[in-house]
Amino acid sequence: MRTHDDSAGDDFLSRLRAGGLTLMMGIRCGRTTDVVHIARSTGHHAILVDLEHSTMSTDVAATLCGAADSLSMTPFVRIPEREYGMIGRLLDGGAHGIVAPRIETVDQARLVARACRFAPRGQRSQTAMVPHLGMRPMPAGTLNPALDNAVVVQILLETPAGIANADAIAALDGVDMLAIGANDLTAELGVPGQYDDPRVREAVATAARACRHHGKLLTVGGVGDQASFEALIALGVCPLVLTGMDAALLYQAASATAQRAIAAHQRTSPGHADSEDTS
Amino acid sequence: MRTHDDSAGDDFLSRLRAGGLTLMMGIRCGRTTDVVHIARSTGHHAILVDLEHSTMSTDVAATLCGAADSLSMTPFVRIPEREYGMIGRLLDGGAHGIVAPRIETVDQARLVARACRFAPRGQRSQTAMVPHLGMRPMPAGTLNPALDNAVVVQILLETPAGIANADAIAALDGVDMLAIGANDLTAELGVPGQYDDPRVREAVATAARACRHHGKLLTVGGVGDQASFEALIALGVCPLVLTGMDAALLYQAASATAQRAIAAHQRTSPGHADSEDTS
Amino acid sequence: MRTHDDSAGDDFLSRLRAGGLTLMMGIRCGRTTDVVHIARSTGHHAILVDLEHSTMSTDVAATLCGAADSLSMTPFVRIPEREYGMIGRLLDGGAHGIVAPRIETVDQARLVARACRFAPRGQRSQTAMVPHLGMRPMPAGTLNPALDNAVVVQILLETPAGIANADAIAALDGVDMLAIGANDLTAELGVPGQYDDPRVREAVATAARACRHHGKLLTVGGVGDQASFEALIALGVCPLVLTGMDAALLYQAASATAQRAIAAHQRTSPGHADSEDTS
Amino acid sequence: MRTHDDSAGDDFLSRLRAGGLTLMMGIRCGRTTDVVHIARSTGHHAILVDLEHSTMSTDVAATLCGAADSLSMTPFVRIPEREYGMIGRLLDGGAHGIVAPRIETVDQARLVARACRFAPRGQRSQTAMVPHLGMRPMPAGTLNPALDNAVVVQILLETPAGIANADAIAALDGVDMLAIGANDLTAELGVPGQYDDPRVREAVATAARACRHHGKLLTVGGVGDQASFEALIALGVCPLVLTGMDAALLYQAASATAQRAIAAHQRTSPGHADSEDTS
Amino acid sequence: MRTHDDSAGDDFLSRLRAGGLTLMMGIRCGRTTDVVHIARSTGHHAILVDLEHSTMSTDVAATLCGAADSLSMTPFVRIPEREYGMIGRLLDGGAHGIVAPRIETVDQARLVARACRFAPRGQRSQTAMVPHLGMRPMPAGTLNPALDNAVVVQILLETPAGIANADAIAALDGVDMLAIGANDLTAELGVPGQYDDPRVREAVATAARACRHHGKLLTVGGVGDQASFEALIALGVCPLVLTGMDAALLYQAASATAQRAIAAHQRTSPGHADSEDTS
Amino acid sequence: MRTHDDSAGDDFLSRLRAGGLTLMMGIRCGRTTDVVHIARSTGHHAILVDLEHSTMSTDVAATLCGAADSLSMTPFVRIPEREYGMIGRLLDGGAHGIVAPRIETVDQARLVARACRFAPRGQRSQTAMVPHLGMRPMPAGTLNPALDNAVVVQILLETPAGIANADAIAALDGVDMLAIGANDLTAELGVPGQYDDPRVREAVATAARACRHHGKLLTVGGVGDQASFEALIALGVCPLVLTGMDAALLYQAASATAQRAIAAHQRTSPGHADSEDTS
Repeated sequence: MRTHDDSAGDDFLSRLRAGGLTLMMGIRCGRTTDVVHIARSTGHHAILVDLEHSTMSTDVAATLCGAADSLSMTPFVRIPEREYGMIGRLLDGGAHGIVAPRIETVDQARLVARACRFAPRGQRSQTAMVPHLGMRPMPAGTLNPALDNAVVVQILLETPAGIANADAIAALDGVDMLAIGANDLTAELGVPGQYDDPRVREAVATAARACRHHGKLLTVGGVGDQASFEALIALGVCPLVLTGMDAALLYQAASATAQRAIAAHQRTSPGHADSEDTS
Repeated sequence: MRTHDDSAGDDFLSRLRAGGLTLMMGIRCGRTTDVVHIARSTGHHAILVDLEHSTMSTDVAATLCGAADSLSMTPFVRIPEREYGMIGRLLDGGAHGIVAPRIETVDQARLVARACRFAPRGQRSQTAMVPHLGMRPMPAGTLNPALDNAVVVQILLETPAGIANADAIAALDGVDMLAIGANDLTAELGVPGQYDDPRVREAVATAARACRHHGKLLTVGGVGDQASFEALIALGVCPLVLTGMDAALLYQAASATAQRAIAAHQRTSPGHADSEDTS
Repeated sequence: MRTHDDSAGDDFLSRLRAGGLTLMMGIRCGRTTDVVHIARSTGHHAILVDLEHSTMSTDVAATLCGAADSLSMTPFVRIPEREYGMIGRLLDGGAHGIVAPRIETVDQARLVARACRFAPRGQRSQTAMVPHLGMRPMPAGTLNPALDNAVVVQILLETPAGIANADAIAALDGVDMLAIGANDLTAELGVPGQYDDPRVREAVATAARACRHHGKLLTVGGVGDQASFEALIALGVCPLVLTGMDAALLYQAASATAQRAIAAHQRTSPGHADSEDTS
Repeated sequence: MRTHDDSAGDDFLSRLRAGGLTLMMGIRCGRTTDVVHIARSTGHHAILVDLEHSTMSTDVAATLCGAADSLSMTPFVRIPEREYGMIGRLLDGGAHGIVAPRIETVDQARLVARACRFAPRGQRSQTAMVPHLGMRPMPAGTLNPALDNAVVVQILLETPAGIANADAIAALDGVDMLAIGANDLTAELGVPGQYDDPRVREAVATAARACRHHGKLLTVGGVGDQASFEALIALGVCPLVLTGMDAALLYQAASATAQRAIAAHQRTSPGHADSEDTS
Repeated sequence: MRTHDDSAGDDFLSRLRAGGLTLMMGIRCGRTTDVVHIARSTGHHAILVDLEHSTMSTDVAATLCGAADSLSMTPFVRIPEREYGMIGRLLDGGAHGIVAPRIETVDQARLVARACRFAPRGQRSQTAMVPHLGMRPMPAGTLNPALDNAVVVQILLETPAGIANADAIAALDGVDMLAIGANDLTAELGVPGQYDDPRVREAVATAARACRHHGKLLTVGGVGDQASFEALIALGVCPLVLTGMDAALLYQAASATAQRAIAAHQRTSPGHADSEDTS
Repeated sequence: MRTHDDSAGDDFLSRLRAGGLTLMMGIRCGRTTDVVHIARSTGHHAILVDLEHSTMSTDVAATLCGAADSLSMTPFVRIPEREYGMIGRLLDGGAHGIVAPRIETVDQARLVARACRFAPRGQRSQTAMVPHLGMRPMPAGTLNPALDNAVVVQILLETPAGIANADAIAALDGVDMLAIGANDLTAELGVPGQYDDPRVREAVATAARACRHHGKLLTVGGVGDQASFEALIALGVCPLVLTGMDAALLYQAASATAQRAIAAHQRTSPGHADSEDTS
């Protein structure tokens, strides 16, 4: 446990910079801290609470983040598009990382980055007590640098417009990582799911150059197969792996177990029609 | 049950286009699926979860929508003004229809419409599993057209400015229906509650023309009496009726039952002063 | 508002003893305080939060009770069968009345009654702060009589065995009212719903005698028609009327409104088949 | 969808009696209906909401049951030990099956069985509206037989004392199935986890005889391997398979995915020490 | 209790205008109405539900506001930055006051002010039933003036840019109070926590002039010591005191009590090392 | 952090046996983990989640316990009277300590003790994954001893009957501590709040003898003043101090701060009547 200290952001970025494989599990359908324990016990270093694609409340998101922090994991939250007002609430509630989806312009990225740090680096609203520092009231002079240091800001580029601004976005103070959402990007390019399209590779290369140039990290999400992932690493993408969303993982295991039961039953009771359509 | 298929939006619009009376019940104070069962058993075809005038959480809204969908009803959500970031969350969570209030400009309407469909028609963020398709992971090539087809986008015009842009808004790809909020419109016109004011009729006629022109549907909400409603139908308004919000329906029944009990008691115990002020 | 005083129970019983019609609304599907406001504005004097027939949490039940108390209504909770451990939690949380269902023996009734008052009259566990007294810490010497006075204990007899013990139960210190559940009693007697069966009338008469004998009040629930109710009053039943459960009231209003819309539409569009089966 | 009818219990038992493989998924950490959709889409016929080993609220349990029912699955709830008062609340809220753990005596089993049916077969408290019949108010004469028919009562024997009473328990009206909890039984026998211990087999045989004798079904939970399961089928156990609890399924998938990612990274970055202890 | 009337806003402002000390307690970590009772019983006149620095849901915020209103307190909500869509939901749900943080421009302030009043003064969306008027359906002609009158709008200036626009903002119809957030302002000025910096005093004087000029009230938050506060009163700041946030108050009391216990134990058991580091 | 190991119970008891002052904070009105952080940062070693005197849900109780465990505190839950079925749910959910109120007989105590340990020491139902061991599936042979070791069972004696059975209760395997509830005991003895009554001292002495005899620990709750507490320590009571319930602590701080503000205002504005009655 990082008991109520402030090194979360640094630890996470340092590990990635050193090339250490970093596993992140996405949470979309979980609402209890059980899923956080499962993520940790299975070797994950971070969670991604997905508020963009779920209807989870901010209170539940904060509880999950707090549990992850207490277990020395780094809790990220993907915020809904355009809902920048949620950033401060989540950071005050226990998130250490903010993932901002569908950023296309420098202004959008700056708004996110500035919402995550205190003046003079940004405009995060002053608070005095946060759970990850044990709710101890602390003066701004001590609290602000500690919290600024603990945050990781990830800007998610999912459109050609976003990629085109990668360099200027990577240059922004307060942006720690760029991320490419491969799913949305291939959809925007008209080649949904074709991660090996040359335009995808080019987009990654563009973002990688921007990150190298400004000393930031790049990650790419949504790429399932290992060969593609290794090619990305070669391009300069950092070894951050989103192993899966909780809903998808549960589906996989439930489906596999059900199929095994059906197969076994068919072997022993071949006359039965158990494979009826359940749709 | 439309078990995990994708015809919800089409079914709803087809019924209206064919002139079939379509009943919708509004939910504002309910938080359990009981109210959805009640809506269905009393003959409603759709629910309208009202997040503009209630403090219901998105998680509860999604649960109500999911229940409606499983019962073959079409679940709509009226989103809060300006909170377009909530659209994707609600659609991923189970809403089939989005009602966007107080739209005044084409840009606002386009933002809503594009948030409801995937590229190239819009910018809905890619997902892979949605409850109304049974949480089955599906590739974008299959999932996106299915979901695009299942959504109904209703643009609510409540001001003269909105009416003035009715034609351009109706022309937008992805806008399926225009709606006129009679309450707010009469208030904006300075004639609160006077639904038979000529300017109201003119506004409806303008919107009806726009809809006819672009093959969209028009609905008008907040008009209580039958005569006015029939006049609207004659103008080209489709037969979608919001029978009432749950809170208002409960109030009516509670009041009627209480009044009957008081009246009965006064008949039998005339000396009693039961009609005391309860304020 | 009875701002944080302790007269709730007394007020409620005094009104009934004086023959004042007292209206109670049942809450089963509501989860917000809106339903409490509706109950009050429509003339109700009390609410009955039904934990026997709903899955509502104790926290929500307490919130509804607290809202009712702040609005000068008397909040009752019908506890689940056999769950006597919940009584103390609900009283500490804001309930003023406890309705204990399916009581058959004097021992069961005594357990309930003693759970509702402090020593020496009972075994309610000592607390120091309750919401209906404003969460002010108070010494036991002041707090206990105040709270003992504010509670109303209603013992619900729903079986012949319970009726047979009515006199002994009514004799118990701490039992303020007997209640007969007409629905369950007719079912137990093998004549479900036949409220005018002589055995029902006899049961009521037995309970009424017990109450008169021991200076307690009797109420009968589940009798819908006015004639039957007046006959009960003549037998000595007090004028407490449960106007309806929220779910039933909502159903009535939703159904009536939907039927009106369908009828109107059929008048104007006689060709349409809107009365399709929705089951 | 069994839209608001009453055949759930019958369907479930008939399928098992006909030897049809029936898959059930356990829910312990899920709180949203997503997990119900996943269960259905992966081929499950029933869910088991586990209130004995989770802290899930009754309101959430009812929501999950309601969702399962709407999707034509049979929702079971395992109630906490000794909390028989919860049975009525859950049945009124949408559960179709009750699993009662650690039953040792005929009296305990009778209490459960009678809590699940209306008079004269039991003591279930009269209600008028239930979600699985669409919240339509119905008279007792219609509602009670429908609901009695829709319920499945499973008595869980987990101790030698329970097994010893198997025949008398199976003889009870209202008991539809016996179940043996293999985990707890082996623990009680002092051979935790040794499912092939002769005493386990003997216990199963005893229960199987009791079930055959009285025309009830027998199921055995907690047996993982296929060979053991087939041996049980041969003994007369019905083909009901609990594929897994959601928490265990999620753990399996998360662990497998994480291990794959680590293995792949070690192949490509052999110098990295990614297998650090995460405990 | 102001039972369902509409004088809340007026009462609050009148008291302040008359120089009456007005105590407000902030709620950030509370989720039950207990904290509202505590605020009232300890002499507070208002609560400030802080949605800017907490992850509390809107439903809980509304419940707290409703409880405060029923207890004759004035419930304020500090909304998250930029989330103006939440204003209408909160006002419909029971808030009487809106505190809008980090306002810098007249346009932002106007957007807030207009979201809080109905046409023609603003754009609040028409509703018919609100909890603070007992959920009674009311026509717009009666309801709107009542609600407009009951609302208090507080614009929070926390940056030099905001202060620079103080006069124009104070001039806006619908802005009732200006507020200076001393914490954020000193941070923005580069002197975090130095409330006696001349620039702070100057900013307060500027805002005070603006308020006097336009007949509005000025309050300053985040100033702990009494001397500074008196100096502010002398400058024209109204006597509204935020006594503390619930989390900070709880921390103070928990810390003081723990320290007393440790000190007492050390006196009697001097050999024990109880002061171990708990960080 | 005790990351997912099993020493919680041992650590807690060892500290007390060694005479180490142990601070526990009660939680009754808190619903978020903020209150757990506050407890830890102010030097507490344990929390007592009070389900006897609050309406908190089991899910929230488990979340608070889990947070405490992750922060290396020992989470206790005081269960409601008679609700022994809740014990297993809470232990599976994250509680390490069970406080059972109003125990009067050896049978009651045995039921509690056996519910807290696995066979052969008790009847806790077999599980495979618990949050405090990271949700890792573990075989019974490993898991059961670990969990048995981690639990602390406290039996609360609050009546003369309970005290009379102290020796036999302390003798029970699985009972780790006796506790005397001074508030309820003085009430039962007819001397509410008189902690220095000889009968109280005698009761404590009786329980202390029982504990010494059987190697168990004794704690006494509800005694506020230091002198009385030291006298108890001299009698053999262990140095476990419940510093306060969160609601009481918040009340103290809110009251003190409000009084200071009123006093200051009266000094500077002597003409104002700010001390009006707020009741």
